[in-house]
Amino acid sequence: MKCRRCRQPTVIELRRHNAAFCRDCFLHHCREQVKRAVHDFRMMAPGDRVLVAVSGGKDSLALWDLLLDLGYDADGLYLGLGIGEYSDESGRCARAYAERRGAKLVEVDIPTQFGFDIPGAAIATRRVPCSACGLSKRHLFDRAALDGGYDAVVTGHNLDDEAAVLFGNVLHWHTEYLGRQLPVLPARDGFPRKVKPLVRLGEREMAAYCVIRGIDYIVEECPMAAGNRHLGYKDALNAIEASSPGAKHDFYFGFLSRAAARFADRAEADQATLHPCPTCGAPTTAERCAFCRLVERAGGSLPGATVPVELGETRRAEVTT
Amino acid sequence: MKCRRCRQPTVIELRRHNAAFCRDCFLHHCREQVKRAVHDFRMMAPGDRVLVAVSGGKDSLALWDLLLDLGYDADGLYLGLGIGEYSDESGRCARAYAERRGAKLVEVDIPTQFGFDIPGAAIATRRVPCSACGLSKRHLFDRAALDGGYDAVVTGHNLDDEAAVLFGNVLHWHTEYLGRQLPVLPARDGFPRKVKPLVRLGEREMAAYCVIRGIDYIVEECPMAAGNRHLGYKDALNAIEASSPGAKHDFYFGFLSRAAARFADRAEADQATLHPCPTCGAPTTAERCAFCRLVERAGGSLPGATVPVELGETRRAEVTT
Repeated sequence: MKCRRCRQPTVIELRRHNAAFCRDCFLHHCREQVKRAVHDFRMMAPGDRVLVAVSGGKDSLALWDLLLDLGYDADGLYLGLGIGEYSDESGRCARAYAERRGAKLVEVDIPTQFGFDIPGAAIATRRVPCSACGLSKRHLFDRAALDGGYDAVVTGHNLDDEAAVLFGNVLHWHTEYLGRQLPVLPARDGFPRKVKPLVRLGEREMAAYCVIRGIDYIVEECPMAAGNRHLGYKDALNAIEASSPGAKHDFYFGFLSRAAARFADRAEADQATLHPCPTCGAPTTAERCAFCRLVERAGGSLPGATVPVELGETRRAEVTT
Repeated sequence: MKCRRCRQPTVIELRRHNAAFCRDCFLHHCREQVKRAVHDFRMMAPGDRVLVAVSGGKDSLALWDLLLDLGYDADGLYLGLGIGEYSDESGRCARAYAERRGAKLVEVDIPTQFGFDIPGAAIATRRVPCSACGLSKRHLFDRAALDGGYDAVVTGHNLDDEAAVLFGNVLHWHTEYLGRQLPVLPARDGFPRKVKPLVRLGEREMAAYCVIRGIDYIVEECPMAAGNRHLGYKDALNAIEASSPGAKHDFYFGFLSRAAARFADRAEADQATLHPCPTCGAPTTAERCAFCRLVERAGGSLPGATVPVELGETRRAEVTT
């Protein structure tokens, strides 16, 4: 098989594109897919300052690399989750990449700054660890982006991730999640804009990208995630993709073009009753925000820097941009 | 494990119900599930004359048996599809059951009456055999029900079938199919009412029902269906059900309660332009109905009994009941 672009020997075949690429043309392909996603969904404008959520895994490091190469003003944010060696190693990968590129990496360490860790929070809440982890990530990424005056939080969710999340949401008909499972969530009162520029690229492509670019990433899955439902949904979709290449792409993009808007009312209803959390100022529909309740249940403490007044000002500034 | 109802030794465990049943209580469970589906979705009223689409497989024979035991005036309709030994054997099972129960079995043999068979139609149309087969079944069941003055066509689609079809429709976001994937389709101009009383029962339950009741059914899958996508969707859902019992039930019934209505506009749009087929009188959106076009492409012929006027009268009578 020859490279679709230059007819040279290939390093990767992409069945859903019915194509194969050489090293350089594959990197070009990845950049083009990101450019197309950014353009089609109006994710970012030239000159935007964005904050990349960096886990140390292949997706977020490849994304950061792609955005820097495409000329975006992209800083990274790494969250220390307190998951033993996994956190040590993923933090090392994130720092090594930032140093190599001379890029700015902001770090927030949950155990140091909030006095709890994800394994402990899972035990305290009696829920799967991914629940406390996702909640903490969303809260702290949002806060860091607003405090730092960034135009958007950028996350490395790829096509496999989005298709699996969509599958889970559809299996349970979580209509409120379906209403906001979009590649761009616009900024709104108290929330920064959130964008997912890797939705046109699969996880195998992101691993290949890192290998070709010599980016050292943490290969292991998070040990807390082992056996979770999300991985089961990925397996189910992988079996379907194997016999019908492009099935995941069609599932996700078909949803965006023909179904997502049908659930928009449910997402909006959820937002109608937002007010600032009295403890940290984050928007919430409950009496206190879910992160502050998590910190309390996990036996941690909220640092003094998060007084509502200061955050409220930052957020008002953000909302008017 | 003891029977949930009577505490006797059990013959079957149903993980999604977190229950096991003895022989008699399992049969009671199946009848209760059918009664509940019929009641919840207002499928049939007492005294209705219904036509059961009988393939000779476990689902349709169990359904017929359940409806007769529940006191419905239920005749069977068997379609000869011309699929070699598979058709011979399935026809034999259908006739044997009808004879045993003294029930009325109407037979329509496609090769004899329309001069083609499903394998030949698949070759002629260059599409998967299931396409020509499903089209022929829908057309001929509808016609037989209207001609015979039945109140509804009753089909043996079980929970596994419906969940797999739903999964396929969701994977492709076939919004027009999603809009009408319901356990009851009311009668409307030119179409009889269609109901699926087995939606609360799985395929394993229907096989067990037939074994316990001593109903001889064709065990083999249709040889034409081997490797089709529908079976792949079933495999994917089975893997999820294995780790989350009840997942299929929640997927299908969650769709009905929280999502189906969101696609209703697409189903209605499809019906806006129906008119009678000039050849056979069946409602169609095209110049001629899909079945008449299939018969022509497959080299068959339409019998004289299908003149539009006669069918038109039958249909008008049906619509007013």
